[in-house]
Amino acid sequence: MSSESEEDLVFKALAAPIRRRMLDALKADPLTTGALCEAFPDLDRCTVMQHLKVLEDAGLVIAQKRGRERWNHLNALPIRDIHERWIGPYAAYAAEKMAQLRDRLG
Amino acid sequence: MSSESEEDLVFKALAAPIRRRMLDALKADPLTTGALCEAFPDLDRCTVMQHLKVLEDAGLVIAQKRGRERWNHLNALPIRDIHERWIGPYAAYAAEKMAQLRDRLG
Repeated sequence: MSSESEEDLVFKALAAPIRRRMLDALKADPLTTGALCEAFPDLDRCTVMQHLKVLEDAGLVIAQKRGRERWNHLNALPIRDIHERWIGPYAAYAAEKMAQLRDRLG
Repeated sequence: MSSESEEDLVFKALAAPIRRRMLDALKADPLTTGALCEAFPDLDRCTVMQHLKVLEDAGLVIAQKRGRERWNHLNALPIRDIHERWIGPYAAYAAEKMAQLRDRLG
């Protein structure tokens, strides 16, 4: 991550549970804005678009226009940067082993 | 991560730049609360301890008492869980390649 203000956009975007659930919805496949609205029937279209804007400004979602449709893709890079910042490639193995231990004990 | 409220503690803890910098300070080695106060001379001890409490409640810091000293350790597990949630082991290689490409182009 390059600057604290860019990072801030990422962490603030992730701070809202509804936006984390939107990223979950985009994990498997990109979705059109219409499909995303259908996946979150409790929210009106305007609210969905506002959350998408926050995610897009943070670089967590990349939008692609195809005809009249807007396809929203999850961008994994800011997530990877969080991992890299505090874990990094060398500690990843240890973190994985600890997670396995926790899951066995839990 | 087990529940949305537990996750919320993690993302709210990470949402403050000062707490992210504290985790940076703990990345290489655990620090006593005193050493952490010295590393953040702009903050009084009480403020440092409040931030540590938020990080500890989120599971991002694990405190260990040794005599009269309190050693603060970075706990990588919640960070790994964020990575796992949206990237996972299968997409990690692709995310790594994309990051390398970005860094070459940037």
